[in-house]
Amino acid sequence: MNVLSLLLFLVYFLFGVDGLGFTFIEYGNGNFTIYLVGNRPIIQHSARRPFVYIGSGETEFRERYGNYKIADYTGEKIGLSSYTVTNDSRGYNLTMYSCSIKVFIRLGSEEGHVLTIDIGDIGSYNRVWIQLTADTNEAIYGGGEQYSYLNLRGRQYPIWTGEQGIGRNRSTLVTYVTDLKQSGGDYYTTYFPQPTFYSTNKYYFHHSGSNYAILDFSHPNFHEIFIARQPGRLYFNTAETFPLMVSKLTNFLGRMPNLPDWIHDGAIIGVQGGSKQMMDYISYSETHGLNITGVWIQDWAGSVDDLFGHRLFWNWEWNQELYPGLDELIIGLRDRNIHVLAYVNPYLTVDGNLFKYAEQLGYFVKNSTDETYIQDFAGIMAGSIDLTNPAAYQWYKNKIIKENMIEFGMSGWMADFSEYLPVDAKLYNNQSATSYHNIWPVLWAKLNREAVEELEMLGKIVFFLRAGFSGTGKYSTLMWAGDQDVDFTYADGIASTIPAALNMGLSGVGITHFDIGGYTTFAPLLVRREELLLRSAEYAAFGPVFRTHQGNQPKENVQFYSSPEISNKFARLTHIFKTLKNYTKIVLNDTVTSGVPAYKPLFFNYPDDVRCYNVTYQFLYGDDLLIAPVILDFRKRWDVYLPADPTASWVHIWTGQSYQGPRDVTVQAPVGNPPVFYRSTSQFVDIFKTIGNL
Amino acid sequence: MNVLSLLLFLVYFLFGVDGLGFTFIEYGNGNFTIYLVGNRPIIQHSARRPFVYIGSGETEFRERYGNYKIADYTGEKIGLSSYTVTNDSRGYNLTMYSCSIKVFIRLGSEEGHVLTIDIGDIGSYNRVWIQLTADTNEAIYGGGEQYSYLNLRGRQYPIWTGEQGIGRNRSTLVTYVTDLKQSGGDYYTTYFPQPTFYSTNKYYFHHSGSNYAILDFSHPNFHEIFIARQPGRLYFNTAETFPLMVSKLTNFLGRMPNLPDWIHDGAIIGVQGGSKQMMDYISYSETHGLNITGVWIQDWAGSVDDLFGHRLFWNWEWNQELYPGLDELIIGLRDRNIHVLAYVNPYLTVDGNLFKYAEQLGYFVKNSTDETYIQDFAGIMAGSIDLTNPAAYQWYKNKIIKENMIEFGMSGWMADFSEYLPVDAKLYNNQSATSYHNIWPVLWAKLNREAVEELEMLGKIVFFLRAGFSGTGKYSTLMWAGDQDVDFTYADGIASTIPAALNMGLSGVGITHFDIGGYTTFAPLLVRREELLLRSAEYAAFGPVFRTHQGNQPKENVQFYSSPEISNKFARLTHIFKTLKNYTKIVLNDTVTSGVPAYKPLFFNYPDDVRCYNVTYQFLYGDDLLIAPVILDFRKRWDVYLPADPTASWVHIWTGQSYQGPRDVTVQAPVGNPPVFYRSTSQFVDIFKTIGNL
Repeated sequence: MNVLSLLLFLVYFLFGVDGLGFTFIEYGNGNFTIYLVGNRPIIQHSARRPFVYIGSGETEFRERYGNYKIADYTGEKIGLSSYTVTNDSRGYNLTMYSCSIKVFIRLGSEEGHVLTIDIGDIGSYNRVWIQLTADTNEAIYGGGEQYSYLNLRGRQYPIWTGEQGIGRNRSTLVTYVTDLKQSGGDYYTTYFPQPTFYSTNKYYFHHSGSNYAILDFSHPNFHEIFIARQPGRLYFNTAETFPLMVSKLTNFLGRMPNLPDWIHDGAIIGVQGGSKQMMDYISYSETHGLNITGVWIQDWAGSVDDLFGHRLFWNWEWNQELYPGLDELIIGLRDRNIHVLAYVNPYLTVDGNLFKYAEQLGYFVKNSTDETYIQDFAGIMAGSIDLTNPAAYQWYKNKIIKENMIEFGMSGWMADFSEYLPVDAKLYNNQSATSYHNIWPVLWAKLNREAVEELEMLGKIVFFLRAGFSGTGKYSTLMWAGDQDVDFTYADGIASTIPAALNMGLSGVGITHFDIGGYTTFAPLLVRREELLLRSAEYAAFGPVFRTHQGNQPKENVQFYSSPEISNKFARLTHIFKTLKNYTKIVLNDTVTSGVPAYKPLFFNYPDDVRCYNVTYQFLYGDDLLIAPVILDFRKRWDVYLPADPTASWVHIWTGQSYQGPRDVTVQAPVGNPPVFYRSTSQFVDIFKTIGNL
Repeated sequence: MNVLSLLLFLVYFLFGVDGLGFTFIEYGNGNFTIYLVGNRPIIQHSARRPFVYIGSGETEFRERYGNYKIADYTGEKIGLSSYTVTNDSRGYNLTMYSCSIKVFIRLGSEEGHVLTIDIGDIGSYNRVWIQLTADTNEAIYGGGEQYSYLNLRGRQYPIWTGEQGIGRNRSTLVTYVTDLKQSGGDYYTTYFPQPTFYSTNKYYFHHSGSNYAILDFSHPNFHEIFIARQPGRLYFNTAETFPLMVSKLTNFLGRMPNLPDWIHDGAIIGVQGGSKQMMDYISYSETHGLNITGVWIQDWAGSVDDLFGHRLFWNWEWNQELYPGLDELIIGLRDRNIHVLAYVNPYLTVDGNLFKYAEQLGYFVKNSTDETYIQDFAGIMAGSIDLTNPAAYQWYKNKIIKENMIEFGMSGWMADFSEYLPVDAKLYNNQSATSYHNIWPVLWAKLNREAVEELEMLGKIVFFLRAGFSGTGKYSTLMWAGDQDVDFTYADGIASTIPAALNMGLSGVGITHFDIGGYTTFAPLLVRREELLLRSAEYAAFGPVFRTHQGNQPKENVQFYSSPEISNKFARLTHIFKTLKNYTKIVLNDTVTSGVPAYKPLFFNYPDDVRCYNVTYQFLYGDDLLIAPVILDFRKRWDVYLPADPTASWVHIWTGQSYQGPRDVTVQAPVGNPPVFYRSTSQFVDIFKTIGNL
């Protein structure tokens, strides 16, 4: 064997047979280990400690107002301890077995991933567990839009879309109260779960199925992934850095397009009440110096006052009574570069004409007796359009999105909900509703996206989603963080938007924003004070979209128009936002081309700084801005950690003071001056200096 | 074969081989069924649905102030689907297996039980599950002292002694607040769990081990019993009626002795503050006409005022400073037929002389570094006497119980606590503290009982326990219901004492009482109002012991001495209680001889009345009294269900009005007149009539 052959042999040995991205090494005593190429072991199998388990059981989903209580019972969990293996050039064929139970597993390096695992038919069993190796100190990120923790390690994360809850923390009074109606949520509840995670051991994992799953990171020496029913393909990929890993993931799952240019020109003010009120709010805003780029009128289709309060009328067409002349006003506003945005969701109120039309045609999701499944959305009785029914899907896209909104002149809309598909629903395509529950948000995103693309309005129009799942990144044009409480709690207040954005960004969906001032109000227990509004707005100013919300009880909350003083402050913030535009466009270009999220965790750019891996409430906006929003009330100063940048120091945007990382600093942070730092060597120093003087 | 042989064959077939209490029938295709003789199938095994599972996992016990949060992880759960079987005259030898996993199971009819199951060595596995057949409508009772539900069906019950919580219901504000310190409890938390249950299918089950277990009655078609580590023997017995089943169980586990005669002569008043206060309370009570049989001074060993409030001094010897002359006062009081009762628990405060003595001798439970394990009892730092250390055990029994209390002249005491053995403690006998955790209350009961018996004071002296486990019934002289909140909640107020007594009675421990007025006070959120005190007292009057408690914040609560009006009402209630004495003695004799509990669920005497199986908040006191305490506030009337008695009508004790069951009645129930009915043909009608006129 000459040297070259030896080298080739080593190459094959080290890098796998014929370019496989993993190596499979047997130890002769029933053990084997799978190594991701150039990486650490990912799977260690022994008879005593099998890596795959099969079993049976049942999951019960108890839903109330879109909140799910999930009770899971495991009847059996059997480790497939023995195996036989063969291999070919494209991979390995494992037969895992225990007694007479056999499961075929195919290991490959498909679809650009170093390791893919396909689990064969599990027969009469209905659940699978896979164990991966883990280190005690390993950190885990991702899981979709995870609101409570940045580092997911030490806990379990059920993967099931639903309301994310109000309070989301058993220790808070708000959660206690809302839990009386099963609406409190918990650390893992989210509109946008995703069975994807990243490890500080430089790999990511992704499950392509949509079934109920649990990502269990609570064990010191292993991770366990539970998947109900037949799993989809499991994907593993590696890269040297997190940015590269996210690029690979988004290359695979899809990347978001750029936002329309106009969205960075100022605020989108969220208002309600009718044409006159809309125009008054716009006047008021302009009079008070706000840069306005849009007005979002969520009640464009009408509203109803009922027992529960003031509710939108879920009948998605222009309500001429409430918004007389809107069609013409829209044209006039567009001339003034003010864009009008609407609201829609995939449900129709039984009281509307669209419902009657759709029901006749059988367009709704059905119940067990084949009638329209009417759901109670906390007082609004509505049917859910069946996105698996091609005719229904087309009708909703063409009639409601295209005709009633886009062609009407809307420049965008909130595309709300889609998490509520009941597990006992009957779908047009006869598939199990349980397996479609997590997919629904993706179908909803797809419908909206197709409408935009088919009218060639991509890049001009934007719709924003809160719900999501694997695949959302391919269709969404913008996300928003859903409903925060109008308070400063970590679990559901301002703070929660940060891990949410970071983990969702890691999961491949990197352009998002949030309701300025939060949403969920529950007077007198939970009302928005001025400080919350301003702290929220000053943080939003350093992001891609600046949109206000009155909250669900507008009269109870402080609003940007509540006083001239507040409006002045808002005006300044909209200037800051607009001044940042060119920088923002650079950031978003990067997101669009590489998949790296607009808001990044510190460790993305500073991977050698171990502290960064547990810094939850700070982030990088692009490469040049480090932002540490003030997320607690009654603070005048704020502590910030500044990592060591090899080529620059960190400049505090308001004072110009310069700091060399790594260091902890405490900065003055009165309302209006959120802790923002820029890199001294940034090409955008002029922009930042201008902002610093505003 | 002649007729006789055939008959014998049938007898053997029906009643088992050589007198076995079960039959084992194989169906030739890997299935078998075990029938309890004369009964229904109890176990159905098939390869597809094995009856026994073995596995591995870990249980984490997180304790705070004696409240346990238990997190259990199952690594594997493998059904032992195949089997081989042999039998002999005494039973069947099963080898259950799955692949190379083999577990030997012995079926027998030992120790007076129709079926006993002994599970052989589970080797390197550490948990077992057994499945029993179940019907959808089957009701389940027992589980030890279960406070929230009478019928346990539909839920799971972890078997682990601990604090039972404050609030015990996620929906209540009190629970929310106490849960901030992990002290809220839940429906299953109890000081006295027991792995025993009864089925309306006329069998009981009992597990003789002490390991952590879960009784899972949440499935429609099967029950599942989970046992951590190596199980003890499983027992099954049948009888035609519930009373007969309880007799069999108590014959097996032990029966309580009779109470001292004096205890039925009046109230035991729970007071504190010193010798003078004690005498003043006694004077006051007598002046106001209360029948007094005892005074319970829980602070006899002293008290301390600290950050947490007014606390007992856990150093169990007469505190001469606080109770000067107590030794003589006791003698004087005994001449007046007033008995003095004390308080003790198995812990000693680090600040006391007894601690120092015991520590020098190494009498305490140790921690992982072999030092005394000091535990924080919400501010009281104390060591736990090691009941597995013979010298420590003897010292505590002889010095503290016998010398310091009995020989000192005490006629009884509250023997509190014993649920707090930490799972990481080191015991003298080197056994696992986790496996001793549930046993500890039984050792504590045994120690107290031995002291009483060795001084030949059984029947003269009484100690009352709150904690318990299998075996408590053999040692206890009296139970009490632990700490109720001073409110009307179902989960932790007055009402909870009813299912607690009924299920504990079914578990074989049938003589109990409760703190009149409840205990847990938390001003201003939770304070005792007059109505609560009086409703509690009027219900206690129809029971074996009438003892008041000031609560843990005496100044915040209404007391029997708070006003002359209240005291007069109490006086009447003590008369009622005393008038009932002869009846009570008959009831208790029955409990002592047959094991049937003093407080019985309705279905004990009316087994054919299907309604009775779900009547939770009514009970029979003996055979002649039906009591439905008013357990909610602001009520003037109360609804009662009266079952059909074959020989008598039900007479409302206050009005003399007669009712024929089965029927629902609504009776006037002003404070002072709890809904009590007697059987018209009772031999004790005169007693009841006298009471009715009080």
